[in-house]
Amino acid sequence: MQELNHQINFILELDKLKAIYRKALIRADKNRYENSAEHSWHIALTAHVLAPYANASVNIHRVCLMLLIHDIVEIDAGDTFAFDHHTILGEQAEKEASAAERIFGLLPSPQRESMIALWHEFEQAETADAQFAKAIDRILPLIQNMQNEGGSWVQNKVFKHQVIKRNKYLETAAPKLWQYVLEQIDIAEDRGWLRRD
Amino acid sequence: MQELNHQINFILELDKLKAIYRKALIRADKNRYENSAEHSWHIALTAHVLAPYANASVNIHRVCLMLLIHDIVEIDAGDTFAFDHHTILGEQAEKEASAAERIFGLLPSPQRESMIALWHEFEQAETADAQFAKAIDRILPLIQNMQNEGGSWVQNKVFKHQVIKRNKYLETAAPKLWQYVLEQIDIAEDRGWLRRD
Repeated sequence: MQELNHQINFILELDKLKAIYRKALIRADKNRYENSAEHSWHIALTAHVLAPYANASVNIHRVCLMLLIHDIVEIDAGDTFAFDHHTILGEQAEKEASAAERIFGLLPSPQRESMIALWHEFEQAETADAQFAKAIDRILPLIQNMQNEGGSWVQNKVFKHQVIKRNKYLETAAPKLWQYVLEQIDIAEDRGWLRRD
Repeated sequence: MQELNHQINFILELDKLKAIYRKALIRADKNRYENSAEHSWHIALTAHVLAPYANASVNIHRVCLMLLIHDIVEIDAGDTFAFDHHTILGEQAEKEASAAERIFGLLPSPQRESMIALWHEFEQAETADAQFAKAIDRILPLIQNMQNEGGSWVQNKVFKHQVIKRNKYLETAAPKLWQYVLEQIDIAEDRGWLRRD
């Protein structure tokens, strides 16, 4: 049962992601901040729902697992706001890589190695699966901000070009969604929710 | 884009599950109550981690999707505590079935039909996938309560036989986990966290 005890320790460790808060507000729950655990649930399901728009070679089940685990490193490294200028990216990447080693390292082999590899695949965003996963992780905040009168864009004075750049993965991962995103960004600019470049 | 608009409405509707609170407490976050969205994330990942213990015929990706969607009906029907005597089960089941029709009904075909079917499969718990999914949904609260000095069992004065009955799916779905659960229940009884029958 040694293996099972390690797996249970990992499962218990996951609870801590429920205490990591993001910049997005949950309108449905008194405008409190969203945590990274519920966010991970939301994007995993979003990936399933938007899977029909993905390019041919995407394996949606791998994408889903990637999205379920991609934020776990925040337990040690914290959440970084997408448009934060103050974060030193290299330093944050190092913190996250150590976090992946420690947290997925709670698991026995070969789960440990396969989770770490999947996490790095997401971060590197070179495979079709990782690119679709990244695209989904980025389109959901856009959908939420459009619903929320600009939401975290307005609060943090984000520029239009920043959002375009951030959603670029869609251009090849899901061209139809990319068109949609460009239209939404234009609407956001017209309404003053995004700063003109 | 009509289809995409429906899908986005469904994705936005999901936000409401973040406002449905369960009886479990999150120790890692100041002992606040857990919501059903973060719970769904936690069990989907738990299913992946405990997949090696599942009986041969289980498709872990279907199980994962089942767990991601199984609580969505609570948006309309609310959460029911597992050991609540006051809930009229037939009435609750009807409410949940209507909720499934309304919420998954936001999706275009064929996603709507396949999500509704998957939700019913989970509820009926007759297939190997659904039984493993149910087993995982029930083992996680046990793991959390064991970590939390009896947690919701103590608060709600739950009997040992109730927890045994609730975890019975494990007996065939994952026999090794069933052994583990029986051991944990004995420990909980010894420590006074579960009432003796």
